Amino acid sequence: MKKLINDPNLVVDDMLQGMVAAHPEYLKKLDNANVLIRNDSPIKGKVALVSGGGSGHEPAHGGYVGKGMLNAAVAGSVFTSPTPDQIFEAIKAVDGGKGTLLVIKNYTGDIMNFEMAKELADMEDIKVETVVVDDDVAVENSTYTAGRRGIAGTVFVHKIAGAKAETGASLEEVQKTAKKVVQNVRSMGMSLSSCIVPAAGKPNFKLAEDEVEIGMGIHGEPGTHREKISTSDEITTHLMGKILKDMSLNSKDEVAVMINGLAATPHMELYIVNKKVSEILKEKGIVVHKTFVGEYMTSLEMAGFSITLLKLDEELKELLDAPSDTPAFKVI
Amino acid sequence: MKKLINDPNLVVDDMLQGMVAAHPEYLKKLDNANVLIRNDSPIKGKVALVSGGGSGHEPAHGGYVGKGMLNAAVAGSVFTSPTPDQIFEAIKAVDGGKGTLLVIKNYTGDIMNFEMAKELADMEDIKVETVVVDDDVAVENSTYTAGRRGIAGTVFVHKIAGAKAETGASLEEVQKTAKKVVQNVRSMGMSLSSCIVPAAGKPNFKLAEDEVEIGMGIHGEPGTHREKISTSDEITTHLMGKILKDMSLNSKDEVAVMINGLAATPHMELYIVNKKVSEILKEKGIVVHKTFVGEYMTSLEMAGFSITLLKLDEELKELLDAPSDTPAFKVI
Repeated sequence: MKKLINDPNLVVDDMLQGMVAAHPEYLKKLDNANVLIRNDSPIKGKVALVSGGGSGHEPAHGGYVGKGMLNAAVAGSVFTSPTPDQIFEAIKAVDGGKGTLLVIKNYTGDIMNFEMAKELADMEDIKVETVVVDDDVAVENSTYTAGRRGIAGTVFVHKIAGAKAETGASLEEVQKTAKKVVQNVRSMGMSLSSCIVPAAGKPNFKLAEDEVEIGMGIHGEPGTHREKISTSDEITTHLMGKILKDMSLNSKDEVAVMINGLAATPHMELYIVNKKVSEILKEKGIVVHKTFVGEYMTSLEMAGFSITLLKLDEELKELLDAPSDTPAFKVI
Repeated sequence: MKKLINDPNLVVDDMLQGMVAAHPEYLKKLDNANVLIRNDSPIKGKVALVSGGGSGHEPAHGGYVGKGMLNAAVAGSVFTSPTPDQIFEAIKAVDGGKGTLLVIKNYTGDIMNFEMAKELADMEDIKVETVVVDDDVAVENSTYTAGRRGIAGTVFVHKIAGAKAETGASLEEVQKTAKKVVQNVRSMGMSLSSCIVPAAGKPNFKLAEDEVEIGMGIHGEPGTHREKISTSDEITTHLMGKILKDMSLNSKDEVAVMINGLAATPHMELYIVNKKVSEILKEKGIVVHKTFVGEYMTSLEMAGFSITLLKLDEELKELLDAPSDTPAFKVI
């Protein structure tokens, strides 16, 4: 295992220290839990947003803590759900009296633990609501998941629900907007290589030299199939076909696009993917309002990418364009 | 070769199309050359900044075209200097009558071709000055380089000289500030793996399973030595030692820090590196003004990272903090 780490059991602690040292203008860490919160917490009169999950997806989720996005990010062990206690500490630290929305990616462990944290909060009369993101169209049910998995589309939920919360909207309104994003966002990915969880020390699967996996999850969960690697255009066309089939998009509809690198894939290749994505959308008369290309929801050192499309209406467009200021997601 | 590409000979063209499709609010491409320019070019009354080099370092340099940074980025073939003609086309497209500064990384091909472009511009009475970045403390002279190599510190030159140009400063003033950045910026990197230039189709070097190269360049040029992989803290301490030895930093001096991923290295590991960087600086009483962690000057799919320190004075600090709005570098 060739990694820039000190101790497989300390990767999350070391990382969180490094994040706070890098971004003290945005973040602080709770003393009693692996939770990063806005350094101006709690913010009175604003619904708080809390998200998180297993580590290994950086900059998700700590990189999205800041103005216009999350109030807290809860960091579990690598690819492992955070505990209910941890999540509850996050809620207590950031709730400003107007309630807290939990943004949960659809994995069984996350659902269970975030729901238990909500129950703990209910007992202390903190109003908490949840939204579950399941944007991955690749497969129904999967390792760790009933239904569809939540992947990079989650970042759009953070951004848009975060902007809604900044307007002073109520918890119910923020939740409603977050659910609207979930209803309108679809993603699908693929991978060219595996990754190694530090504590495991070896790859959780293997692909042959000329083989890729289509529909792979962000923890290496199986996708739809493996195939010989083809061209970027062919792979992109296949993923876009699956995504578009699952959305009702018509000519002149507007979308936001995210081309998300899982880690090892060069930005050069992500832009080559975006060339084909933009061509496909243009052919269909679908208008691209904004495109994000980079690493937003990664999978340790895996090579691969995902495409996310979000169908926009006037509200979603306005909230997507609203300013955000976080370590990893800035909208000016 | 497992890459998301269509044709090894078309990677730069496909990528530039994908970049313009992703960021039309910032960029357009020249019809007659692989050059990305600000879409509001030329800008009257402002010194223009032109940079670039071989492709494969994305988001450098196209990702830094926008308000407060570059006016144009010239894209050569992968790891290959752009031609003088290309650079000259960039100058002509963005010069707003106040002159153009060329920001050149110290590689023999780049120096030669940017200097020739300057001569072409001189003949057409366009005022052009140059600044050469040579921040890599690893080795003197190297493949492609006389003296030291230019690496991730170049991004600080783009940022700060770009901010200076926005103030309406003269070409001489912008050049002077850019040179001040060069005098005060130092970097050093290491790699855990090689990368494959698409047209070559095979890795340009090999490292053993437990081996890393210290001081490696961003095109795979040899570093100072190879060694068995140790901990992140040990590697970081070694690189910081070399960098600090080459700088005159005293307690209470202020620096900007960049932890730059070469591509395949997870953000998690970059933050683990930053933990140690911040500890070392703190021990010495050196004040970190701002830290940037991410992929700024990559090397195709190589695993590894570099550390950059920039010693700040009041002018550099103010210009670093000035707003910039580009696809890959936003300061609010």
